[in-house]
Amino acid sequence: MDGTQISMGAAAAPYYLPQGDEVQVFQAAAARRLPVLLKGPTGCGKTRFVAAMAHRLGRPLYTVACHDDLSAADLIGRWLLKGGETVWVDGPLTRAVRQGAICYLDEVVEARKDVTVVLHPLTDDRRILPIDRTGEELQAHPDFLLVASYNPGYQNILKTLKPSTRQRFVALEFGFPRPEHEIPVVARESGLAEDRVQPLVRLAGKLRAMKGQDLEEGISTRLVVYCAGLVAGGMPVERAIRVAMIEPLTDDPDVKAGLHDLVTAVIG
Amino acid sequence: MDGTQISMGAAAAPYYLPQGDEVQVFQAAAARRLPVLLKGPTGCGKTRFVAAMAHRLGRPLYTVACHDDLSAADLIGRWLLKGGETVWVDGPLTRAVRQGAICYLDEVVEARKDVTVVLHPLTDDRRILPIDRTGEELQAHPDFLLVASYNPGYQNILKTLKPSTRQRFVALEFGFPRPEHEIPVVARESGLAEDRVQPLVRLAGKLRAMKGQDLEEGISTRLVVYCAGLVAGGMPVERAIRVAMIEPLTDDPDVKAGLHDLVTAVIG
Amino acid sequence: MDGTQISMGAAAAPYYLPQGDEVQVFQAAAARRLPVLLKGPTGCGKTRFVAAMAHRLGRPLYTVACHDDLSAADLIGRWLLKGGETVWVDGPLTRAVRQGAICYLDEVVEARKDVTVVLHPLTDDRRILPIDRTGEELQAHPDFLLVASYNPGYQNILKTLKPSTRQRFVALEFGFPRPEHEIPVVARESGLAEDRVQPLVRLAGKLRAMKGQDLEEGISTRLVVYCAGLVAGGMPVERAIRVAMIEPLTDDPDVKAGLHDLVTAVIG
Amino acid sequence: MDGTQISMGAAAAPYYLPQGDEVQVFQAAAARRLPVLLKGPTGCGKTRFVAAMAHRLGRPLYTVACHDDLSAADLIGRWLLKGGETVWVDGPLTRAVRQGAICYLDEVVEARKDVTVVLHPLTDDRRILPIDRTGEELQAHPDFLLVASYNPGYQNILKTLKPSTRQRFVALEFGFPRPEHEIPVVARESGLAEDRVQPLVRLAGKLRAMKGQDLEEGISTRLVVYCAGLVAGGMPVERAIRVAMIEPLTDDPDVKAGLHDLVTAVIG
Amino acid sequence: MDGTQISMGAAAAPYYLPQGDEVQVFQAAAARRLPVLLKGPTGCGKTRFVAAMAHRLGRPLYTVACHDDLSAADLIGRWLLKGGETVWVDGPLTRAVRQGAICYLDEVVEARKDVTVVLHPLTDDRRILPIDRTGEELQAHPDFLLVASYNPGYQNILKTLKPSTRQRFVALEFGFPRPEHEIPVVARESGLAEDRVQPLVRLAGKLRAMKGQDLEEGISTRLVVYCAGLVAGGMPVERAIRVAMIEPLTDDPDVKAGLHDLVTAVIG
Amino acid sequence: MDGTQISMGAAAAPYYLPQGDEVQVFQAAAARRLPVLLKGPTGCGKTRFVAAMAHRLGRPLYTVACHDDLSAADLIGRWLLKGGETVWVDGPLTRAVRQGAICYLDEVVEARKDVTVVLHPLTDDRRILPIDRTGEELQAHPDFLLVASYNPGYQNILKTLKPSTRQRFVALEFGFPRPEHEIPVVARESGLAEDRVQPLVRLAGKLRAMKGQDLEEGISTRLVVYCAGLVAGGMPVERAIRVAMIEPLTDDPDVKAGLHDLVTAVIG
Repeated sequence: MDGTQISMGAAAAPYYLPQGDEVQVFQAAAARRLPVLLKGPTGCGKTRFVAAMAHRLGRPLYTVACHDDLSAADLIGRWLLKGGETVWVDGPLTRAVRQGAICYLDEVVEARKDVTVVLHPLTDDRRILPIDRTGEELQAHPDFLLVASYNPGYQNILKTLKPSTRQRFVALEFGFPRPEHEIPVVARESGLAEDRVQPLVRLAGKLRAMKGQDLEEGISTRLVVYCAGLVAGGMPVERAIRVAMIEPLTDDPDVKAGLHDLVTAVIG
Repeated sequence: MDGTQISMGAAAAPYYLPQGDEVQVFQAAAARRLPVLLKGPTGCGKTRFVAAMAHRLGRPLYTVACHDDLSAADLIGRWLLKGGETVWVDGPLTRAVRQGAICYLDEVVEARKDVTVVLHPLTDDRRILPIDRTGEELQAHPDFLLVASYNPGYQNILKTLKPSTRQRFVALEFGFPRPEHEIPVVARESGLAEDRVQPLVRLAGKLRAMKGQDLEEGISTRLVVYCAGLVAGGMPVERAIRVAMIEPLTDDPDVKAGLHDLVTAVIG
Repeated sequence: MDGTQISMGAAAAPYYLPQGDEVQVFQAAAARRLPVLLKGPTGCGKTRFVAAMAHRLGRPLYTVACHDDLSAADLIGRWLLKGGETVWVDGPLTRAVRQGAICYLDEVVEARKDVTVVLHPLTDDRRILPIDRTGEELQAHPDFLLVASYNPGYQNILKTLKPSTRQRFVALEFGFPRPEHEIPVVARESGLAEDRVQPLVRLAGKLRAMKGQDLEEGISTRLVVYCAGLVAGGMPVERAIRVAMIEPLTDDPDVKAGLHDLVTAVIG
Repeated sequence: MDGTQISMGAAAAPYYLPQGDEVQVFQAAAARRLPVLLKGPTGCGKTRFVAAMAHRLGRPLYTVACHDDLSAADLIGRWLLKGGETVWVDGPLTRAVRQGAICYLDEVVEARKDVTVVLHPLTDDRRILPIDRTGEELQAHPDFLLVASYNPGYQNILKTLKPSTRQRFVALEFGFPRPEHEIPVVARESGLAEDRVQPLVRLAGKLRAMKGQDLEEGISTRLVVYCAGLVAGGMPVERAIRVAMIEPLTDDPDVKAGLHDLVTAVIG
Repeated sequence: MDGTQISMGAAAAPYYLPQGDEVQVFQAAAARRLPVLLKGPTGCGKTRFVAAMAHRLGRPLYTVACHDDLSAADLIGRWLLKGGETVWVDGPLTRAVRQGAICYLDEVVEARKDVTVVLHPLTDDRRILPIDRTGEELQAHPDFLLVASYNPGYQNILKTLKPSTRQRFVALEFGFPRPEHEIPVVARESGLAEDRVQPLVRLAGKLRAMKGQDLEEGISTRLVVYCAGLVAGGMPVERAIRVAMIEPLTDDPDVKAGLHDLVTAVIG
Repeated sequence: MDGTQISMGAAAAPYYLPQGDEVQVFQAAAARRLPVLLKGPTGCGKTRFVAAMAHRLGRPLYTVACHDDLSAADLIGRWLLKGGETVWVDGPLTRAVRQGAICYLDEVVEARKDVTVVLHPLTDDRRILPIDRTGEELQAHPDFLLVASYNPGYQNILKTLKPSTRQRFVALEFGFPRPEHEIPVVARESGLAEDRVQPLVRLAGKLRAMKGQDLEEGISTRLVVYCAGLVAGGMPVERAIRVAMIEPLTDDPDVKAGLHDLVTAVIG
């Protein structure tokens, strides 16, 4: 299973500006050891939020980006051949269960079905992780916390969380940050002054309002940061908007033309 | 096969409040060694019931959460390479057959077709489990009992039990508990006083009545316990309902708005 | 290949009450070494019939429950690694061919296509089983007999026997036993007196008449035995009918209500 | 690859009664080393014809029953592990190519696509079989002959011979034998007198005329032999017709009733 | 990868009668090291043409018949276990790249998608073949030439060459030879006198004109040679036409009847 | 993973004539370590552009041609058995991450889903590549740059970049070069004088205007170079246009006839 990221809570605190009471809700769920489901569009800050909460709670964080081929063994572990010996190697979920870490399953609906089954005994009152291949049955560390995310905007009928899985989580809905939150974030990350960031964030708001009509998905804060960074590096604003805020969103010439008009109207 | 859970009947008795004569029917089936099929929605207490019956009968319990990739070998066992030796490792079904335990196949319709075939000689008068890979043919322990569950609410046409499998079980239908049963359960599990639990259970009843219209599935008792626990921990009731009883059920903004009105009407 | 059952003809004679001349036809086919195909619904006694005939003919019986993943190698055999040595292990068909046993392929249409191909040279005048992996070409023992079954009631368009396979069998059609046959069978297996079994068998007849309308499949004698056994163990008749003769047949609330009325009318 | 049959031309001559000039055409094709394609319905005698021709030409015969999972390696050969050594084992096609045998691919359209590709260099003027895994490139023995069969009656759109494969064969069409040919064949194989065989063959002719309307496929000579054999063994004619000539053809109650009337009309 | 053929340019020159300037175009492409794509129907002489060009240019020829399961490893090579050692074995493409041979991919659209990707760096100005599994990056020999063929007449929507692959080839269109070319070819290959070949070639022309209406594909020169050969061997003309020019083309009784009339009209 | 190409920045500078400010945008993105997505039709120069930029930035370039079967392990690396030892072999992405190279994923939408997941932690602010199989977590070299390309003209609904992947790139749109750019390129690569190249480029422009109507894709500069090269080698212009600019584009006789008229009109 490649794509797992491990970050220790002791590292520098990730920059995260709360949008509402999500920090309090997460802490309350963590206090009662309830699994947490983060719902929201691409690039609205879910991953950053989990990193910030892991730091605040002082727990290691294992992030697993889920995909079509992610299987239970990828999460739990495998026997590997190393130097002629078979060695058991814990997967990220097992490591989190042992250490009392947060295990974050990003875009959990993308994983294979057998993954969700592994989560069931971990998310009821028993909090156990059976590992048949080693004969172990792990009792989760008291600090172990399961967090998952998904994007309800994708209309993938074939891939949804089954109610029997979904009803094991407390769920938090995320949206894009409000301008007064997004402007300082973009300015901080890009190095561009807030007054120059402001029209880019205004444009982002207009683009997000087009989701479901001309655009498949609203624009992420990340792309606004890219755009502001290019401007800070000397690129003309309209060109930076083109390469960082329009071309990554669409291939349709008509939509691009419409967005160009929008840019002119907003940026001037 | 990861996801199997083993619990010994000697552990502390699971808390289970019977809804009707299901305990008597289960005991009668066990006395005659008839396989039992539990039918009912997510989170209505089927798993807890099996755990309680295993304790009452004093038998170990092997729980297998079935899924798309669960094969016969996952249930029966495998040759594994350990330290240069090939070692046979019994699967959970084989262990249950040998020890006289209960083997509980949760959501059995999710398993692969070859799994149901394995069950056939175990569920007729011969009660045998042939293991071709070891050459053994096990006669089931007199106390071995097969229990399976499934959720008839899922409209998955591709996945149903074939009549030739289904007609090997005595079947019990489960529903959500009546309020007078659910309130003490939620209060006991969450630590919230019964009078404060009462409106949450009333709301759950309203939500369950919406199943098939706006909601795919009725709300589980588990989520009501989550909600009550968050309230017991100091979260405002409406916020706890939102994160534990509405967001886990639906992503649809219109449905959420309707549920919000319902909450106001019920909770006040 | 797990799920094979071996029974020696020398064991106690299985209880089987003939419905017509099926014993004579089977014996005539066996005398001429013609393969036999048993057609009929779930639980009408096909498997029991084969066991009885194996006993009567004094031949071992290998029963293979066919399924989606059953391949030719599962029937013929495999090289297995045992203690550092590769050892050839005959599959059930090969064992039957060598020993002059009956090989019974239950629900043969469920098997993979390469299985039927293996049967072709065994079912023409040559009666040979070539095993490429060992270089052997077995001439079938004179007593070897191939028997297969399938349920013509399943409307699975994708899975049928090809004419080139089907036209290699003498075929016998089975139905549910007539009441005068079924009542003593149920009484004997359940321990319930015949007069108390009689209304249950009458009800079973009504349920079988509903096949294709409200019920996918008629009720098997097995379930009637279950029901009678629960009644013999002290369960009220209506409750036993519910858990053993209605819930295993359907999940549809309307159908259940209709069946309830039928029960009242038949049982009183 | 299981299912291959090897028969040496030196064995007793298979009984085959020519229907037309098929023996002369086959011999002419063999003389010019042209591949031969036999087209015709199930059980009309194609396999028997090839066996007879192999005997007449004095060449060994390798018969391969093709199916969905038959791959090129099944025909050509494999490296197998035997006693710690890897040993190359020729497949049936390779053996035929080396020895100058006839290789008969029965129902060739059922094989996987890579099989037909293997045949291409063997069926043009080069007559070579390259075996990449051993580094060999075999020049076919002068007596090697490729024969294939298929049943044009199956309407399987997905499985047809590509023109680039098909146009490498001389093709012979087979039908069911005429009564004057079929009666002595059935009498000889079943041991029933010709005058008693005659009405069975007349019935078979009527059943074959129903192909495409009520019956998927005409009845094979094999089943007529089965029926005559059962009659010769003492079974009543109508019962033998039922189990050997009607039940193997159809499961449809209406069709069976119609066939019953037909039997009465023909047999009396 | 079985089915590869290797022929050295030093062998006897294949007989090839040019239809137009295809020899000059091929030589011009080879001189500039441009990949060549041959488009045309089954049996029109593409394979023969490549063999003739390889001989003329004095280069070895590796022919690979592509199919559904042909993968990149089949072309490039594999690690094989031989006598306890892992040995790298070059695939036919790698051998051609090293030796400066022609690699001919027959029916290239049939290959798997990863095959075309391998061709990309070989068909731009870099002319390299990276072999990750050995760590090599081969610079193609100056004489290496890639040739591919496909039949544009097959209407397989799922299998087409992607423009990004197709636009890497110079393309030559082939048709069936004109009578004045085909008659001497058939006479030479079959041993039948030209005046007796002439009506067969005239018939072939009529059959080719029916392509797309009653016949899926025009008749190949190969089949005309078969037919002429059988006539030369003493078979009556009409019978030879039937088995070599009609039965291999169609299974449809109506079409056959029409073709029979055509034969009478043409042959007399 | 075969098909990767490695080129060191120190080699001779690839010839690349900028069409606009793409060099500046690429350099700005590289300076801020932003991933770059190149969008444009087949053969418009994307691959050449990346090679030129790698040379200009003095960084090694790893090019991976993506396809259906390309998996994460192909990019990251594998344990291979070499001489009885298991040796880890870095994939091209890992090598690029370690060395500070450019990794170019050509036609990234063709890759399997798990590939895009690997890219996520490399394309946010952490810039890490976790390699579970070795236990390493690589921090990307400061000079590591990820570049991907795709062709928005293919209407493959099943294969698109998910917004969560796509919104991690700065995107540049490429088109075919304007005549004043293309003519010198073609002249330089083919050796044909610019005045003779000019009508070929004019014809290419006409052909590109037909995209989406009669032609699936516009003609690449590569084919114009092929054509010019054949003319430079002595082939008549119309013949060279036929084999290098028409036959590679279409198989449709009507379209070819139309293109022939177009050629006459443009070339005269």
